[in-house]
Amino acid sequence: MANIGVVTTATNNQVILRNYVSGFPKESDLYIAATTVDLRVPPGSMAVLVKNLYLSCDPFSRIRMEKPDPSSPASLARAYSIGKPISGYGVAKAIDSGHPNYKTGDLLWGRVGWEEYSVINPTPSSHFKIHHADVPLSFYTGLLGIPGLTAYVGFYEICSPKKGETVFVSAASGAVGQLVGQFAKMAGCYVVGSASSKEKVDLLKTKFGYDDAFNYKEEHDLSAALKRCFPEGIDIYFENVGGKMLEAVLENMRTHGRIAACGMISQYNLKEPEGVHNLASIVYKRIRVQGFAAVEFFDKYSKFLDFILPYVREGKITYVEDIAQGLENGPSALIGLFHGKNVGKQLVAVARE
Amino acid sequence: MANIGVVTTATNNQVILRNYVSGFPKESDLYIAATTVDLRVPPGSMAVLVKNLYLSCDPFSRIRMEKPDPSSPASLARAYSIGKPISGYGVAKAIDSGHPNYKTGDLLWGRVGWEEYSVINPTPSSHFKIHHADVPLSFYTGLLGIPGLTAYVGFYEICSPKKGETVFVSAASGAVGQLVGQFAKMAGCYVVGSASSKEKVDLLKTKFGYDDAFNYKEEHDLSAALKRCFPEGIDIYFENVGGKMLEAVLENMRTHGRIAACGMISQYNLKEPEGVHNLASIVYKRIRVQGFAAVEFFDKYSKFLDFILPYVREGKITYVEDIAQGLENGPSALIGLFHGKNVGKQLVAVARE
Repeated sequence: MANIGVVTTATNNQVILRNYVSGFPKESDLYIAATTVDLRVPPGSMAVLVKNLYLSCDPFSRIRMEKPDPSSPASLARAYSIGKPISGYGVAKAIDSGHPNYKTGDLLWGRVGWEEYSVINPTPSSHFKIHHADVPLSFYTGLLGIPGLTAYVGFYEICSPKKGETVFVSAASGAVGQLVGQFAKMAGCYVVGSASSKEKVDLLKTKFGYDDAFNYKEEHDLSAALKRCFPEGIDIYFENVGGKMLEAVLENMRTHGRIAACGMISQYNLKEPEGVHNLASIVYKRIRVQGFAAVEFFDKYSKFLDFILPYVREGKITYVEDIAQGLENGPSALIGLFHGKNVGKQLVAVARE
Repeated sequence: MANIGVVTTATNNQVILRNYVSGFPKESDLYIAATTVDLRVPPGSMAVLVKNLYLSCDPFSRIRMEKPDPSSPASLARAYSIGKPISGYGVAKAIDSGHPNYKTGDLLWGRVGWEEYSVINPTPSSHFKIHHADVPLSFYTGLLGIPGLTAYVGFYEICSPKKGETVFVSAASGAVGQLVGQFAKMAGCYVVGSASSKEKVDLLKTKFGYDDAFNYKEEHDLSAALKRCFPEGIDIYFENVGGKMLEAVLENMRTHGRIAACGMISQYNLKEPEGVHNLASIVYKRIRVQGFAAVEFFDKYSKFLDFILPYVREGKITYVEDIAQGLENGPSALIGLFHGKNVGKQLVAVARE
C-alpha cells in the first residue's frame, strides 16, 4: 500500500565543494545547491536518515579541501570530492532508521554532510547517541564533542600536568583552547593564552580563567612576549597553530617540557609551510612533542562525559560559541576560521529540533 | 716524614679553549699547554687523582664552546671557560684517592678534563667504576659508555620497536648509530642508515647489519632517497643530525611514528639554525618526537651492561673505533667530528694503563 498523503521526500540544501583549494579558502570555493532526499531509508538497509541540527566548523576541513596527492592513501582518503557536499561533525536527529541502535527521534552526534539531511551508516567510532539532552545540544559540536575530547586527552593524557607547572595555549579562545585554560586552572597550573584580538584576550582573562594573555598580532617579538609571561619558562604547550609561534615556544620551553600538538592552523593555508628553527631545543631540553587526534581516543569519551557533565550542569565550565544561523551562512563561517573571525567555538545552526 | 725519592708531581698537558666559537670550530680555537699536577690528593679530601687513558670526542662539546648566554642558567652551566681545559667523558685510572669507593689502581669512566691527569670528585651520576676489564677499556668511551647507553635507551625505551617495523638512522656509522642498526636487527626491524661517504655506507651494510644505506651527500633529494628505501614509510627515526634530514624524514614517516632525538649535529655550527618545514606532519600522522639524554638514564646502566656484555664477549656486537693517538691530536680529532672525518666512534688515546 502506498503511503498516500505522507511526505516522503524533502528539499535538501547542501554545501558543495566547487574546486580544490590552495592558499586561503574563499567563500566562492563552496556553493549551495538543492537536491531532493528520500526521508525513508530503503527497506533492509542499516542506514539512518538524519536531520542535521548543528554543524561544526573545524580547521581540519581546510586540509580536506586540498587537491589529493594520488601517491598518498591518507591524502586520498581525507580529501573532499569536487561537486559533492563537504562533511564534518554535527548534531542530528534520526528521522528514519534501519539501524538496530537508532530509532526515529533519537539524537546523535558524529560525521554528517554539510546539508540539511544526511544518510549515515553509524559505527561505534563515527556516531554517538546523545543521552544527555538537558544541556545545549550545540555543545556536542564543541564542549561535549571532538574539541572537548581533544582538550581533555591532550591536556590530561598527553601533557601529564603537575600542580604548579606553567602552561601556554595558542588559539586560546578557540573551540579547544578555551577548555584547556580552564582545565589548567583546575589542575593548579599557571596558564597563559594567545589570541588574535583584544576582545579575545579579554575573554581569556575574564571568562576562561587564564592568568594572563596576549594578542599575538600586537607582539613584534613572540619570544619576548613569552619570556615576559613566563620568566621561568614553559612546562606545557598546547599547540594549535604551529609556525613562528612554535619556534618562539621552543625557545622558552623548560627542561622536560611537553608539547601536545592537535593542530597547526597557521600552516594549513600556506603553499610553502614556514620553517621552524630552534628544533635542537628538543634535544637540549629533552622535550616531548606528541601529535594526537581525539578520534583515536574515543575509548575515553564516556569517561570524559562523566568528568565534564557535572561541571557543565553546575556552571563551573564556561563555553563560548559563535553560531552562524542557517546552512547558507556555513561557507562564510567556515572560511572565517582561517582569519580568526570567530570568537569561541564556531558552528552553524541548520535547523531546530 | 717527607716522601723523599717519591715522585709527587708530574707535567700535565691540557687542551685549553682559546676563545668562544661561532660557526664551525677550528683547531686554533684550542691549544695545548703544560701545567704541573700534584699526584697526591690533599689529606682529608674526598677527591680522586686520575690518569686519563681515553677521551671521548662528542658533538656536544661544540655546544659547550659557544659563548654562554648570561640570561640562561643552562647555557652558563654547560659552557667551557676560556683559558681552562675543556672536558668530557673519558676512561681513567685512579692514582691516588681520598674517596672511600675508589682506591689506587681502580679503573673508572666518567667526566674528566682533556688533560693527562684530572682531579675528580666522583658521584654516582658522574663516574662509574669499571668492573669488567676483559673487554677493551676504550669501549667505555663508546659501546659501554654514554653512546652505548644512548643507543640502548633511545631505541628500546623511547622508540618501543616492534618486530617488522621500519627504522631509519642518521649519522648511522657514528658512535651511537652503529649500535642502533644492530639493535634494530636484533629486534626484527628493517633498518636503513645514512652516512657521509661511500666508505661509511659500505661499513653500514657489511659490518653493522644495515639492510640498506645511502650517502646523503650524493642525494640531491633526501625525501626521494627515503621514499626509495622506505616505500611504505618509516616507523622509527633515530635522530642524530636535524635540519634538512629531519624535514625529509617527517615527509616519510608513517602514522604513529616515533622519533628519538639525542642530537642534531648538523645544526650545532650554524649561526642561524635551518628551518624545518613539514612539522604539521607531526599532527597529521600523530608522531611522537622525544628529546632525551643518556645521562638521565643512568639507573638503566647496569641493566644495559648485563644486556650488552655477553654480546660483546661472544663477538655478536661490532663496534668500530677511530682512535687518535696522543692528547696533542685531540683537537683535530674533535674538530673532525663536525666534518664527518671519523669512521666510527672517535676517541683519543692519551696514555697506556
